Amino acid sequence: MGSTITEKILAAHAGKKVVEAGEFIEPKVDIALSNDVTAPLAIKEFRKSGVKKVFDKNKIALVMDHFTPNKDILSAEHVKFVREFAKEQKIKHYYEGGNVGVEHALLPEKGIVVPGDVVIGADSHTCTYGALGAFSTGVGSTDVAAAMATGKVWFKVPQSIKFVLTGKLNKWVSGKDIILYIIGLIGVDGALYNAMEFDGPLVKKLTMADRFTISNMAIEAGGKSGIFTPDEITEKYVAKRALRKYKFYKSDKDAHYHKTLEIDCGKLYPQISLPFLPSNTKAAKDVKRTYIDQVVIGSCTNGRIEDLRVAAGIIKGKKVNSNVRTLIIPATPEVWAQADKEGLFKIFMDAGCVVSAPTCGPCLGGHMGILAAGERCVSTTNRNFVGRMGHVQSEVILSNPAVAAASAIKGYIATPDEI
Amino acid sequence: MGSTITEKILAAHAGKKVVEAGEFIEPKVDIALSNDVTAPLAIKEFRKSGVKKVFDKNKIALVMDHFTPNKDILSAEHVKFVREFAKEQKIKHYYEGGNVGVEHALLPEKGIVVPGDVVIGADSHTCTYGALGAFSTGVGSTDVAAAMATGKVWFKVPQSIKFVLTGKLNKWVSGKDIILYIIGLIGVDGALYNAMEFDGPLVKKLTMADRFTISNMAIEAGGKSGIFTPDEITEKYVAKRALRKYKFYKSDKDAHYHKTLEIDCGKLYPQISLPFLPSNTKAAKDVKRTYIDQVVIGSCTNGRIEDLRVAAGIIKGKKVNSNVRTLIIPATPEVWAQADKEGLFKIFMDAGCVVSAPTCGPCLGGHMGILAAGERCVSTTNRNFVGRMGHVQSEVILSNPAVAAASAIKGYIATPDEI
Repeated sequence: MGSTITEKILAAHAGKKVVEAGEFIEPKVDIALSNDVTAPLAIKEFRKSGVKKVFDKNKIALVMDHFTPNKDILSAEHVKFVREFAKEQKIKHYYEGGNVGVEHALLPEKGIVVPGDVVIGADSHTCTYGALGAFSTGVGSTDVAAAMATGKVWFKVPQSIKFVLTGKLNKWVSGKDIILYIIGLIGVDGALYNAMEFDGPLVKKLTMADRFTISNMAIEAGGKSGIFTPDEITEKYVAKRALRKYKFYKSDKDAHYHKTLEIDCGKLYPQISLPFLPSNTKAAKDVKRTYIDQVVIGSCTNGRIEDLRVAAGIIKGKKVNSNVRTLIIPATPEVWAQADKEGLFKIFMDAGCVVSAPTCGPCLGGHMGILAAGERCVSTTNRNFVGRMGHVQSEVILSNPAVAAASAIKGYIATPDEI
Repeated sequence: MGSTITEKILAAHAGKKVVEAGEFIEPKVDIALSNDVTAPLAIKEFRKSGVKKVFDKNKIALVMDHFTPNKDILSAEHVKFVREFAKEQKIKHYYEGGNVGVEHALLPEKGIVVPGDVVIGADSHTCTYGALGAFSTGVGSTDVAAAMATGKVWFKVPQSIKFVLTGKLNKWVSGKDIILYIIGLIGVDGALYNAMEFDGPLVKKLTMADRFTISNMAIEAGGKSGIFTPDEITEKYVAKRALRKYKFYKSDKDAHYHKTLEIDCGKLYPQISLPFLPSNTKAAKDVKRTYIDQVVIGSCTNGRIEDLRVAAGIIKGKKVNSNVRTLIIPATPEVWAQADKEGLFKIFMDAGCVVSAPTCGPCLGGHMGILAAGERCVSTTNRNFVGRMGHVQSEVILSNPAVAAASAIKGYIATPDEI
């Protein structure tokens, strides 16, 4: 019997010929990531281990993106603590200030994570890098601490579920809609501890931005990871960025899958996830008029240049509704600069949007656009749990950037066709 | 005996022919301002008065600038509370979201405050509008509440101190350096409850930006207000912006001054105020090497387009020091858009700065760049009290934008001549 791409990557990193689902392994880690929220705990646990030096100063990424520019004294103290550790250990991939971007957008962009990697991160959306054909998963801070000391991580090889994506996408339908639809279909635990492998004729037509968005939200279906087989599109993205050699893996034809689901994406219209679960999915066109107070376009899910272009295309020449605070949060400094260069900020500012510096900010209720009781936000982010963006009586509706932009103009949940 | 410009404006608003220093008056208010920090209290007090409608919906300004984009649930609740009041009362000058700028930069820019006005604001830097030849002063939230109900405010006519500014400014010396020098000279209570009137041959050569900066910091010398006699430069600024008729007042030649000080500004080099008082002033070139962790260029004091141009001119083609988080915070959306149009953001981003949306943010330790213990920031803001920008063991050094930009590059307090 053959192996899946996931099993192959894990076997290679565990020094084994093959691994099987259910097996406990201790693979080598190519990158261990943490951020301003999780790194302080990881560092404290690392100190407890008694190990003086990290296993490899080039294989640790510390990205100060969640509560920065420093929201308050506590976040400033956390960043300072991590900065001092980074200096002491000469960590190569330490990001703060003008260099910082949302970690899961930043690491691929900088070529710090590459195809074939095993990446762990003390952040649930670390699964994003599966888009590159890497095994990539969110872990606890203590797992990162152990990896910083030993260069390894301990876990169970996941089963794989294959999602065969077919059809031709309708206008305004993107990676976000595909993954929201899948989460709606299988539920927030529908892929629990499984590697979600995205395959089928449609994937060849998905941009890297689409793939990042899809892999990013694998965790919202409970997935251990969400992976694409790297191809020419991957190669084009990676070739100019990779800081290390990379390897393209692919699943054997006779690999074993726990399940296979075929999804006809051609029948999809832009999706939204209504409060309070990402699985509470509907076509945006099918919801009754729902007024909103805020729109957020950004995050590790949809804060890339492609996302901003879509939003700007819809907003161009129009004004956002005066009842809607519309926050544009480019995910990284590179995205920021590119959007500026393309004139997107002029469009956003003329329309009455707020353009922020890169930060995770409101996505996790951190800062930079928190909701009061009774307020409602359409957001391109990844979670709409109770209180996710502020008050427990506030609501978040997840969408793609096109729906978010249309909703900002209309003042209620709207599709681009209504503009 | 003649009257000062301050006495004339106050007399006209109190319905009197003349007023004298020390007299209690109840002048009409042209604009009563409050923000997301102070408006909630003002509104609560207004409610207690039993008055149902504000005295004039066109004469109240509510600017949600301090903790926005909403920092946290509490700030979101405050903004929501004020927004609902603004809607109920049909307040014309309500600003939030994409419209918001730092109040004291926004109100003159929008022509909401004009020469000859009496303006009160529940914010200490309301004295800024003296630059336009208005009487303008910071008051408590309850005073704003009373003004919202009655259209009047009660206070004692201040004495006036005349500052005769002379000399030709050295390179890199601006309004900020003049006012820092004056505060250093007379102390933080040197003009206590006095109207600081700026006069002399040099004032004719000061830009509106310089004048705003000088008037803005009158309060840091204890001044009740800080006023300039309007002239052709004022006229040029106001003509295209004013939403109402305005009137230019000027002091009589035989007006009485409590004191007159002549300041030879030609001898000044760029000034800084060391921790922990604005009066702890020195020439930047005379301080020993002092390493820094952050630079802030923004605020009601120095967040105007002129300030960003100066900073960009110094930073252009260079990188900011990797130890220095350099925050560029344009004061208003108009400043933001203009800076973008002029290509200043490309300069800042290429150099590794962070470009933020308009907010008061770090100036008052609100958010968007808070300091940890032991951290030091060179800032174009107006106060460097203990804990002003974060931890009580952090330090703020006040400067003009040129010194701030030079320091960002060098990593320590530096002058542009060192670049």
